Amino acid sequence: MINDIRQPRHKKDYAIFASALYVMKNILLASTSTLFGENYLAYLQPALRDLFRDVDEIIFVPFARPGGISHDEYTAKAAAAFAEAGIEVRGLHTYANPASAIRNAKGFFTGGGNTFLLVKQLHELGLMSVLKEAVESGIPYLGASAGSNIGGINMQTTNDMPIVYPPDFRTMGLVPFNLNPHYLDPNPDLKHNGETRETRIREFHTQNDIPVVGLREGNWIRVKGDTVTTEGTCLTRIFLKDREPYELEPGALLRFQPA
Amino acid sequence: MINDIRQPRHKKDYAIFASALYVMKNILLASTSTLFGENYLAYLQPALRDLFRDVDEIIFVPFARPGGISHDEYTAKAAAAFAEAGIEVRGLHTYANPASAIRNAKGFFTGGGNTFLLVKQLHELGLMSVLKEAVESGIPYLGASAGSNIGGINMQTTNDMPIVYPPDFRTMGLVPFNLNPHYLDPNPDLKHNGETRETRIREFHTQNDIPVVGLREGNWIRVKGDTVTTEGTCLTRIFLKDREPYELEPGALLRFQPA
Repeated sequence: MINDIRQPRHKKDYAIFASALYVMKNILLASTSTLFGENYLAYLQPALRDLFRDVDEIIFVPFARPGGISHDEYTAKAAAAFAEAGIEVRGLHTYANPASAIRNAKGFFTGGGNTFLLVKQLHELGLMSVLKEAVESGIPYLGASAGSNIGGINMQTTNDMPIVYPPDFRTMGLVPFNLNPHYLDPNPDLKHNGETRETRIREFHTQNDIPVVGLREGNWIRVKGDTVTTEGTCLTRIFLKDREPYELEPGALLRFQPA
Repeated sequence: MINDIRQPRHKKDYAIFASALYVMKNILLASTSTLFGENYLAYLQPALRDLFRDVDEIIFVPFARPGGISHDEYTAKAAAAFAEAGIEVRGLHTYANPASAIRNAKGFFTGGGNTFLLVKQLHELGLMSVLKEAVESGIPYLGASAGSNIGGINMQTTNDMPIVYPPDFRTMGLVPFNLNPHYLDPNPDLKHNGETRETRIREFHTQNDIPVVGLREGNWIRVKGDTVTTEGTCLTRIFLKDREPYELEPGALLRFQPA
């Protein structure tokens, strides 16, 4: 279901299908928006020029609201990061008809913050499936942190605190796996009994069989058509149910090793 | 509502109400079961002798299943820790009628693990309210980590990963606040962009006004009747909506400072 990009889903898709043989998904799911000591989205600029080639305007989804900032404040922050590239940014919250805005958009960026807040609002506004269809029709999509979580099958490998109760944990399923952004290796020096990230993902796999991609800071997933690669400066850690985790190099094709 | 212990709730309470003037809640909510390098529950032994005075048998709630271990394995671990004190431990999962078992129990211990798993099962089995009523009638209750989270008003300040979808985030409300077990101070040296624990709790307070008690490793909350104190070896950090966090000494009465 998830990766069946050759199957047009709605009218708009048929035009793209006819002209391009198959729909070319164009997605970037990043671990984080910001590297330590750098500006917002700075490390991603070369990758964003490729993702948003010929795009002069994108819709920003501000619903995750990091630190509780307003939708307007958060949109202004995103707009500033895209100004140099000549890309205009408008917040999804400013449209009277957000579903229609999504269907007519040229590109998307969903920022980080709290995944529970983001998912609750997308479901309650009926926008999760609308956004999924638009991205699967080939409109470029950038996610960072919580915005990357919603590119996975469900939000159940988020690190965030459940500060609100979403009506559903399922997300867009743009890729056939889940993401764990801000993936952090265990610290052997820590004298603390809270679970490590790896322990948490193992516990996820006691209840689910969805593959999980652990994205360290500075890493991202790139989807071009039916090609999915692991990108960035670090190895990417892959978790499969009942298997030892393994690592993929930057630039590697993301395939899940058979058992 | 939460702290109105003088108001009998069901038939059983009236007997206790009549005999003891008011119901004496007897609760210990611990940050963790185990301190670094120590045995399971070892640091809590003196406090447990006080909590479970004259109790020779308790029910263990194993549903949080840390690391995915079985209910039997988890119960055996709890039983070993209580053997020396001469207290027998039986797993709630072994009863044909768990609601009836809870109503007839002499004491409870809910172990840590994943709070989402624990809450999902307690709600789906209809046991959350049964356990609440039993503890509010005076039966001693020990919680550790996830088992402490469910003593709060809701589970929305857990640190756990949402590996399953509970039908409700509300928990027992044995105390008029939420808990954040394994509370960890920000590490100023960490070059990582994931949210600190304090940031997460601040985000909780953009959506909720419930007080949050940050329990560092080695600390616990003790409830005796209508007296709630912060106990253990560290300061306890208190978070109120729109206020600067503050600290309480071990042994302090837990009162929330007026704005």
